[in-house]
Amino acid sequence: MKALWLDGNLSLRDDVPVPSLQHGDALVRVRIAGVCATDLQLLRGYGTFRGVPGHEFVGEIASAPDAPERLGERVVGEINIACGRCAQCRAGRPGHCARRQVLGIRAHNGAFAEYLSLPLANLHAVPAAIADRAAVFAEPLAAALQIPQQVAIRPGQRTLVVGAGRLGQLIARVLRLSGCDLAVVARHPRQRDLLTQAGIRWVGEDRVQQNGADLVVEATGSPSGFAMAQRAVRPCGVLLLKSTYAGRIEADLSSLVVDEVTVIGSRCGPFAATLRLLEQGLVDPTPLIDACLPLSQGPAALRRAAEPGVMKVLIDCR
Amino acid sequence: MKALWLDGNLSLRDDVPVPSLQHGDALVRVRIAGVCATDLQLLRGYGTFRGVPGHEFVGEIASAPDAPERLGERVVGEINIACGRCAQCRAGRPGHCARRQVLGIRAHNGAFAEYLSLPLANLHAVPAAIADRAAVFAEPLAAALQIPQQVAIRPGQRTLVVGAGRLGQLIARVLRLSGCDLAVVARHPRQRDLLTQAGIRWVGEDRVQQNGADLVVEATGSPSGFAMAQRAVRPCGVLLLKSTYAGRIEADLSSLVVDEVTVIGSRCGPFAATLRLLEQGLVDPTPLIDACLPLSQGPAALRRAAEPGVMKVLIDCR
Repeated sequence: MKALWLDGNLSLRDDVPVPSLQHGDALVRVRIAGVCATDLQLLRGYGTFRGVPGHEFVGEIASAPDAPERLGERVVGEINIACGRCAQCRAGRPGHCARRQVLGIRAHNGAFAEYLSLPLANLHAVPAAIADRAAVFAEPLAAALQIPQQVAIRPGQRTLVVGAGRLGQLIARVLRLSGCDLAVVARHPRQRDLLTQAGIRWVGEDRVQQNGADLVVEATGSPSGFAMAQRAVRPCGVLLLKSTYAGRIEADLSSLVVDEVTVIGSRCGPFAATLRLLEQGLVDPTPLIDACLPLSQGPAALRRAAEPGVMKVLIDCR
Repeated sequence: MKALWLDGNLSLRDDVPVPSLQHGDALVRVRIAGVCATDLQLLRGYGTFRGVPGHEFVGEIASAPDAPERLGERVVGEINIACGRCAQCRAGRPGHCARRQVLGIRAHNGAFAEYLSLPLANLHAVPAAIADRAAVFAEPLAAALQIPQQVAIRPGQRTLVVGAGRLGQLIARVLRLSGCDLAVVARHPRQRDLLTQAGIRWVGEDRVQQNGADLVVEATGSPSGFAMAQRAVRPCGVLLLKSTYAGRIEADLSSLVVDEVTVIGSRCGPFAATLRLLEQGLVDPTPLIDACLPLSQGPAALRRAAEPGVMKVLIDCR
């Protein structure tokens, strides 16, 4: 099959084997895949993954020996493939399985291909009201919805999102539904326009009030973003980290202690709730789409996604 | 009056003025004061404090113009002196007052003296059943009790305290009351003996299980202690920081995100609950006392407290 292949470099290949299925797996024909910052980090050598990248997708079930009734179902998918037997799995945290594979990120080929495989349990049927171009955002939107899954967002709360890139935009669209007093630190005109169009207030970096926010969400993945987030959170407030960082970074842990700040790491989130929000039109991610290129132009799509100010680039894999 | 005076160096002086009182203040005649790691850090130049150090004490009210009925009351005291008017004070967080003074730490003379002053509201009457040598631990014990104030300690929980120094010992004595599965990382034979005597399990640094603890309390204040604590906490677990760190330290924030760990800074705690535990004999801090020197030997007392393996050194200020 055709697929993008990461092996130091990224190339388009047409000789990648169609994934073989384990017990309980489905083969998914990919319709559209989305490019994420993690894909760009993999390209830059973060992690050791070799194979087909890509973990945001919408597709349809092309083969499911253990559930023939699901054949043809339009699906999005959770990306962690758990062993089901380790201490984390048995404790109800399959997303933290010590032996997990992760679609397009760790030991399991991903979505920038004609086909991918995932356990049937990972695949969620997409309601008819959700277009493919919205459904493809299910995975990063679920990551945004992990925030209210971990922390009660109170309507009276002053909430600041640091970073208005792909993830920050989705986070802001989820948080505004709580009615909280929301602002997003946005640098680029396009980021600001997208927020304004969605009815979300933005501020420049120079207008962030010290200790002024009850909850701060860090969505830049940069040391300067973390430092800004730490300055912005009030004593006894919550600093939620939504991005990974390249390498170790310096932090002022003493002021976390003195100010009794709570820092919460946050990763993958609930798909069912995400599909409910999309189905009801409460979140519309499609204004973030900057381009949709065919799989044959996959390497160009990833280069495009790495350009400053570019939001979501999609890859049409059909 | 006689007092220890920090001014680059530490010296004993006999010409320090008795503290003057503001509206609502009491003058406290200090009986016994305790030496804490923070005092030793101040000596090494951490912070900019100049004046009388010391913030752990038991004493008696020698003057209280606004509450003459409290004259002679034996008291311990909360160390943060809040302005009562700023945003933090109005939000019910006087301990985080932006303009706060802190007894013996920031802009307010402390307890290594014959007398100190504090607002009456900061002073808690000590029940008769609590000896002076136990009451003097009220402030650090309250800091240990801040942990269950911030986090529910569940009896089924695997809890690890990293560090078996002064603070780690007190934390362990508080946490064992929850019935949780508790272990303390202890390095020195004296630390281990004290834990064993208190019925608390200790482990060597080489026996700490990776990702094996639901809750980890970091009580060393060292970068290596933080790194060990981060390795020990399980995915979705809680890492509670109980010590401040000298300067900025490097942290692996990405694994906090990937493992969805919650990091909580923790400082001063509830005095009333502390006095209840001491009165009922549920926590006995007195085995930690290594020495009690008179105020005239104050500089020697602080040198003694800085020796490796030494636990609590008291100063008799009468």
